[in-house]
Amino acid sequence: MNRQPSIPTLEDVAQAAGVSTATVSRCLNEKEKVSKSTLSKVMEAVENLGYTPNFNARAMAARRSNTIGAIIPTMENAIFARGIQAFQVALHEKGYNLLVSSNVYRPELETELIKSLVSRGADGLLLIGHSRDSETYQYLERRGIPSVLAWSMQPGQTHTCVGFDNRASMHPLADKVIELGHRHIGVISGIVEGNDRAQSRLEAIKDSMTAHGLTVDPDMIIQTFYDLDNGSIAFEQLMQKVPTPTAVMCGNDVLAAGAIAKAREMGIKVPEDVSITGFDDIELAKHVYPALTTVHVPHREMGRRAADLLVDLIEDRGSASIIQLDTEVVMRDSLSPPKT
Amino acid sequence: MNRQPSIPTLEDVAQAAGVSTATVSRCLNEKEKVSKSTLSKVMEAVENLGYTPNFNARAMAARRSNTIGAIIPTMENAIFARGIQAFQVALHEKGYNLLVSSNVYRPELETELIKSLVSRGADGLLLIGHSRDSETYQYLERRGIPSVLAWSMQPGQTHTCVGFDNRASMHPLADKVIELGHRHIGVISGIVEGNDRAQSRLEAIKDSMTAHGLTVDPDMIIQTFYDLDNGSIAFEQLMQKVPTPTAVMCGNDVLAAGAIAKAREMGIKVPEDVSITGFDDIELAKHVYPALTTVHVPHREMGRRAADLLVDLIEDRGSASIIQLDTEVVMRDSLSPPKT
Repeated sequence: MNRQPSIPTLEDVAQAAGVSTATVSRCLNEKEKVSKSTLSKVMEAVENLGYTPNFNARAMAARRSNTIGAIIPTMENAIFARGIQAFQVALHEKGYNLLVSSNVYRPELETELIKSLVSRGADGLLLIGHSRDSETYQYLERRGIPSVLAWSMQPGQTHTCVGFDNRASMHPLADKVIELGHRHIGVISGIVEGNDRAQSRLEAIKDSMTAHGLTVDPDMIIQTFYDLDNGSIAFEQLMQKVPTPTAVMCGNDVLAAGAIAKAREMGIKVPEDVSITGFDDIELAKHVYPALTTVHVPHREMGRRAADLLVDLIEDRGSASIIQLDTEVVMRDSLSPPKT
Repeated sequence: MNRQPSIPTLEDVAQAAGVSTATVSRCLNEKEKVSKSTLSKVMEAVENLGYTPNFNARAMAARRSNTIGAIIPTMENAIFARGIQAFQVALHEKGYNLLVSSNVYRPELETELIKSLVSRGADGLLLIGHSRDSETYQYLERRGIPSVLAWSMQPGQTHTCVGFDNRASMHPLADKVIELGHRHIGVISGIVEGNDRAQSRLEAIKDSMTAHGLTVDPDMIIQTFYDLDNGSIAFEQLMQKVPTPTAVMCGNDVLAAGAIAKAREMGIKVPEDVSITGFDDIELAKHVYPALTTVHVPHREMGRRAADLLVDLIEDRGSASIIQLDTEVVMRDSLSPPKT
């Protein structure tokens, strides 16, 4: 009923310009990769035919739905917000819409949502992290649905992925904290079960402590859901331990912002009385007071490149590839040497 | 292929317990609304039959996709995060999955996304605000797709809606600012075009100023996209005006948090030198320093009740209804009388 056979397709443009559909697509999306003469030939055909790379036309051209699915652990807080927004903007430039679903940090729900998105006709999926059954990948492979993993990077993986090594990213920050002289370090970690990112970050802190000859006291590690209030509660608990921690390392910026707010409420000065660190460098990190020392993750770049990889796979231009992004420690004001 | 005819349906449970399917649903989702004897009868049938209110079983029972679509203006920042998360959790308890799409504050893209979600088989939609063509509603009506509007409330509307009156919500805060003695008031507003919420909040501030005999100076009103950095930039611009504002009212908490951070950077004390107010009462509001005086919006309740309304419409239990939620001014530390 919605079919409008007069709308020109990508194939029509390719035929008129005497080039492949991949070249047309490149002219529309990655002009810099195409020669000037090809570009002008293709753009002339685009104009003559009145081709618009919008949803309907492209779906008709490729028998695709031009819809991508993403499943993220949570929609609350801004942890995935910036990366997903960049992912969406990049997808839309390529003529794809994005549908996002959240599994509320419940691994078993992810499988259900994947099947739901595939049955709704998703052309490809963005998934967060690596903690899932191999059956899920087999399911996607049988149906020919490409997927890209983001937000983490496991050694030896083969699945298309754009991410960063959470362990290697947290390591230099933990080293920095210890090298400044901190010996009693509290940790507010995300729940590690089913969350490879949280687990890797926590392990990096433990590794670094052990490497520096410090004892890892399980009593000084609190696991909690990522949330400002939970960061506050965990911080208060840690500050009642004996000996009191002189530094509290948090699994992400949201927990750290909650810890900073609670410190102020308790009359504890940051960083004079206790240092607090984060992870992610979301926009909030530089706006809390004192500004947060944290690990910068290039969320926008991750979102953009995930879109590139996924669309290349869907449009048969790409093969499995693994992109590891660099992170860096951002020194702001919430970390200093301990009081002597 | 996936069909498993032995899975019991909601109807099976209703029949076994001798009640309506609506009653079974209530027993599963809103226990407090059901008598003890009905509850025990229904739960016995649930147990005997091995009924689980999950995706497959319910979809089979009702020939629905059990998928709801939501289109929100942005995924960045946490403006819609809490309400949408509550919406999703409530939907999932009722056996529905949620797909979220963002139109990046572009009204024309919303129409495209609505069509995409409907063609993907969405049983119903959550839409934000009232600024859209009547054609969109006609499109949904022709296809029999129920929709619920949230986050705003227009006088005289008839569409099913759970929201709050943005104008009436901002009004008492503006009155409060003026009654404290502020005469030079700067405003950092969201972009009002295509955003009825931003427009109503701005109008409330203007109304209140006019009602108190103050002149509204267009030069003291800056419209910008909701973003921490934009709040910072706009605040700096406002503080260069003559006369300098003694209070800056912001269209939401994200802009206000950006303004507070910039004030600190500029060595301007809040609220001693300038008062700053927000709107929304997202989690961030109480965690910035000084804690933000703002308007509390019951985001979680809005999300939950939107889920109730929408599922009732989909399952033919409800008729169009309009739920107006109350907001309240939350006095924290960022608002005080101006220096004399």
